[in-house]
Amino acid sequence: MANEGVDKCEETEHMIEKDAPKERGGALGDTKEIRAVLLSAFGGLNKLRVAKKAMPEPLEGEVKIRVKACGLNFIDLMVRQGNIDNPPKTPLVPGFECSGIVEGLGDNAKGFEIGDRVMAFVNYSAWGEVVCTPMEFVYKIPDDMGFAEAAAFPMNFVTAYMMLFEVANLREGMSVLLHSAGGGVGQAVAQLCSTIPNVTVFGTASSFKHEAIKDSITHLIDRNADYVQDVRRISPDGVDIVLDCLCGENTGKGLGLLKPLGTYILYGSSNMVTGETKSFFSFAKSWWQVEKVNPIKLYEENKVIAGFSLLNLLFKQGRGAQVKAVVDKLISLYNQKKIRPLVDSLWALEEVKEAMQRIHDRGNIGKLILDVEKTPTPLMANDSTETSEAGEEEEDHEGDNGNKERMPFIQ
Amino acid sequence: MANEGVDKCEETEHMIEKDAPKERGGALGDTKEIRAVLLSAFGGLNKLRVAKKAMPEPLEGEVKIRVKACGLNFIDLMVRQGNIDNPPKTPLVPGFECSGIVEGLGDNAKGFEIGDRVMAFVNYSAWGEVVCTPMEFVYKIPDDMGFAEAAAFPMNFVTAYMMLFEVANLREGMSVLLHSAGGGVGQAVAQLCSTIPNVTVFGTASSFKHEAIKDSITHLIDRNADYVQDVRRISPDGVDIVLDCLCGENTGKGLGLLKPLGTYILYGSSNMVTGETKSFFSFAKSWWQVEKVNPIKLYEENKVIAGFSLLNLLFKQGRGAQVKAVVDKLISLYNQKKIRPLVDSLWALEEVKEAMQRIHDRGNIGKLILDVEKTPTPLMANDSTETSEAGEEEEDHEGDNGNKERMPFIQ
Repeated sequence: MANEGVDKCEETEHMIEKDAPKERGGALGDTKEIRAVLLSAFGGLNKLRVAKKAMPEPLEGEVKIRVKACGLNFIDLMVRQGNIDNPPKTPLVPGFECSGIVEGLGDNAKGFEIGDRVMAFVNYSAWGEVVCTPMEFVYKIPDDMGFAEAAAFPMNFVTAYMMLFEVANLREGMSVLLHSAGGGVGQAVAQLCSTIPNVTVFGTASSFKHEAIKDSITHLIDRNADYVQDVRRISPDGVDIVLDCLCGENTGKGLGLLKPLGTYILYGSSNMVTGETKSFFSFAKSWWQVEKVNPIKLYEENKVIAGFSLLNLLFKQGRGAQVKAVVDKLISLYNQKKIRPLVDSLWALEEVKEAMQRIHDRGNIGKLILDVEKTPTPLMANDSTETSEAGEEEEDHEGDNGNKERMPFIQ
Repeated sequence: MANEGVDKCEETEHMIEKDAPKERGGALGDTKEIRAVLLSAFGGLNKLRVAKKAMPEPLEGEVKIRVKACGLNFIDLMVRQGNIDNPPKTPLVPGFECSGIVEGLGDNAKGFEIGDRVMAFVNYSAWGEVVCTPMEFVYKIPDDMGFAEAAAFPMNFVTAYMMLFEVANLREGMSVLLHSAGGGVGQAVAQLCSTIPNVTVFGTASSFKHEAIKDSITHLIDRNADYVQDVRRISPDGVDIVLDCLCGENTGKGLGLLKPLGTYILYGSSNMVTGETKSFFSFAKSWWQVEKVNPIKLYEENKVIAGFSLLNLLFKQGRGAQVKAVVDKLISLYNQKKIRPLVDSLWALEEVKEAMQRIHDRGNIGKLILDVEKTPTPLMANDSTETSEAGEEEEDHEGDNGNKERMPFIQ
């Protein structure tokens, strides 16, 4: 990774608000400083602000991207709390994915040209105006894919695809249980399931989302209901695949719901995030509290248990080439109009706290996007259901920020 | 299952030895009694003998089979010791698979005619002259498949196929580690791996088997060597699939050797069988001693752990239809000459103890078969390597028992 000068950040929130129009209006590359979201220390929302940092320059094999939009994922909340294994040092710029335009190339960075429209994974630092990342994590985007869609694409769809087709082996006639069915991964899973004939999808989600997502999920279950009982009532044998982003007691429940030869996949642990700041030792606690699995029980029951962490796969385990092959398949599905990211809402960098609060409160339907060129708009939105429609209809959001006004969720 | 009158068995080992030629020479269906291997109680080899029992008759949906050959598997040793979960009551007739000729059909047993050559799974009782089993567990065999081959086929190839292609997802370029590479499942795994381009197979086996199986395994490792080190030396990243029939400490080793997104499958626990009789509480002990797996660790490492028990799948979990679909695929591969069971040796029912000792001592290369029509031959064999060649060349062993003489392994 390029040294992006995080430790030289000035906290200039005030200044930025004043200077913002000029900053954004400047020609590309005009300045040696960029705006970025800064996490000054692990903790609550008050640890986040927009600051200036030095312009990053690409190292060998890296691509420099003028960022247009960034994806906000649940894992970003866990990073904010330091509630992850081996957290990095603060201050840092969060963010693992973005879309934008190629602005520069490091030595030996091949396959791209200045001006290419791309989406990319970044090992932190995505939430800024310019980012550098190794070329293996950068993918060209289709002409008709907007930047907001592109920023909503990599994490959710790669995670969903690899879980369904590379860890599990989703085939015709199978059934899938997923939690947070209205979230970014949930909606990606639902869309990918619809590409296989006769797949039944059980999904838990807050009741207020049911109307909006009812076409994508075969059986919607209220988030607060006893989903084990609800699934059993419809399918006494259980399901073939359980995708669990909650962890804790849901692991045992999920394993219990598997049919023979079924696969349970843990891909997150959002239940660890119960408040704005992490509970004392919450990561270590959940490690010890989660139910451990006896392999002999798996043998007797013919069951499969798996874990999936895309970030570890990419940044710790060197699987960029395998992920790139998956992105190629996904772009092909996008071009065939079989899948399409569902964008919940767009937020200015300065609105990152409100955006995080929305995902924490599970208010979103689809993906939250940080729109680097958006002006903060602390005005009343019409209502929350409209935000998802705005996202769905969004082809290319540049320049039409005026109608994305909504009320911040925290005053 | 038909009531096969196990509790009425007479222990007639002596008589049978005297009467054996007449018994075997009798026309099919001439008698109301059959010969079968009887396990009088859980324990050592001395609990096994050949006895007479009432002729079984098919219940509704069952097929009655005049048995020609039976497969002997490691699980049969564990059954003998009572070293399994929820052991059935003794006395019982062991055996889970056989081949033979359809001799009768229960009501509504469709798809077969008297005289059909078949192979079948049986929920115990396979090791007798006649057996009845539900039609869903019976499969017609190709004309050019001998009965010994057919008895060696179902357990090993279905287990190997479902592990590689339904639990794991074996694809081009992957690597597989298997133990007991010279055994029945090991050789089936090796053959199925060779149907996929560029698959690397690491296999542990006793040194004396290496010459015989070297063409089927990419990297042979001595059974007593540190296989973790040996695999790492050749492939520092580890392997994509680990198939473990040993259990115990091998679970942790196998998980440790997995590449990201790799799959460890426990399909047996032969390490539990350390002597002729089971150690006190050995099943319960191994249950508690096996290393439990933390799902969060799987998440961080992107790993998959699975268990596979074909018998449970068939007889407890009602997956006969799914297994039948797999058998169809396997027969197609057999007809394309891509796979072929490797028979180690043929044994008379009266030689079951010697056959079990051979598998216990891991002396076999390929599958041990009980040949129902074979006369016990307590004569000196040439040597043990010839036995596998005899099996390989065996197309149809009926009537040529004379050259299958070998020395019993226990006096």
